[in-house]
Amino acid sequence: MPSRIPKSVENLIEEFGKLPGIGPKTASRLTFFMLTKHEEDIQRLAEAVSGLKKNLMTCSRCFNIAESDPCEICSDDKRDSEKVCVVEEPLDVLAVDRAGFDGLYHVLGGVISPISGVGPENLRIGELLDKLDENIKEVILATDPSLEGEATAMFITQKINGLKESGRIPKGIRVTRIARGLPVGGDLEYADEMTLSRALEGRKEY
Amino acid sequence: MPSRIPKSVENLIEEFGKLPGIGPKTASRLTFFMLTKHEEDIQRLAEAVSGLKKNLMTCSRCFNIAESDPCEICSDDKRDSEKVCVVEEPLDVLAVDRAGFDGLYHVLGGVISPISGVGPENLRIGELLDKLDENIKEVILATDPSLEGEATAMFITQKINGLKESGRIPKGIRVTRIARGLPVGGDLEYADEMTLSRALEGRKEY
Repeated sequence: MPSRIPKSVENLIEEFGKLPGIGPKTASRLTFFMLTKHEEDIQRLAEAVSGLKKNLMTCSRCFNIAESDPCEICSDDKRDSEKVCVVEEPLDVLAVDRAGFDGLYHVLGGVISPISGVGPENLRIGELLDKLDENIKEVILATDPSLEGEATAMFITQKINGLKESGRIPKGIRVTRIARGLPVGGDLEYADEMTLSRALEGRKEY
Repeated sequence: MPSRIPKSVENLIEEFGKLPGIGPKTASRLTFFMLTKHEEDIQRLAEAVSGLKKNLMTCSRCFNIAESDPCEICSDDKRDSEKVCVVEEPLDVLAVDRAGFDGLYHVLGGVISPISGVGPENLRIGELLDKLDENIKEVILATDPSLEGEATAMFITQKINGLKESGRIPKGIRVTRIARGLPVGGDLEYADEMTLSRALEGRKEY
């Protein structure tokens, strides 16, 4: 059965289908939804996509995506510059910031993942270590609680400990890891054993 | 907490968030995914969106979206022009065509829905009735098996029966409704009672 679908429609279905988590059915649904929209709404989406990287740069301090260098966060005097939160991706900065963190960030640009061919040298770990001086009191490792995220956090901790021992950075810098435990609103009986085991380990006086 | 997110990024998150079934979290995820893409991939999506309605028109016979008028399906001599499949939306044409239907279509442009303020006069029902002559042997009503879809199918059936009685269209035109029953691959124990009841009603000799 030949495809009876106009080229431009097929084209957009194909492009939508390249987005993560969007299968062929969702891609068609989104495309046919767009077809019901006015031309101006369609062009508004087109321009938003087209202009995405316009005026965007990478902040040379935290490596987050930004409209200025240094970025809005790095150049904000009101933020607590004694704390650096280390995250994998720019999207993580958004999440941590929404949670109320008021320190600075350092975006690694990924995690150590031998399977994907990503080693420590492909991440901005050296740039993190270079930052550590007497102005910084705490490094919060907020990589994902995944195998790779844990391995990356572990790697960075060892590097920092090595530098402390050799006296190249102040011994007083604390290295912390965000807590692993039950998600708020979660259900204990559905928690996997790793999470529950971490939740027990991390228990606190009530 | 002020938004620390670049305007262009915020803009695309907002636009993606207008798509059906895409909440703010998915919209962010899609946007940050696009940020990891090369500029050419970004522009390819932008152009696909922008050019969606270019060269698109509505077929004046079946009211499907098309690149020509009459559309590819309506002008295809090899199709069985004695059968007309009545569907709600252009996306439905695609689905029915994939299922191997080889007749013609009639796109209503929606369903009767008093809640949404859509009456029969807002749909292309008159245009369907005008089509019915001795060249057409069967009208297959393939509106959704929803309340509105059933009501619309019922309404069209009554209209056709009225025209048959008054002798304005041939009495021989069959009006059929697609079968309601258990979806293939479905699980009987999870079927709702309406579906199961329809499946029993529609049973056939084995």
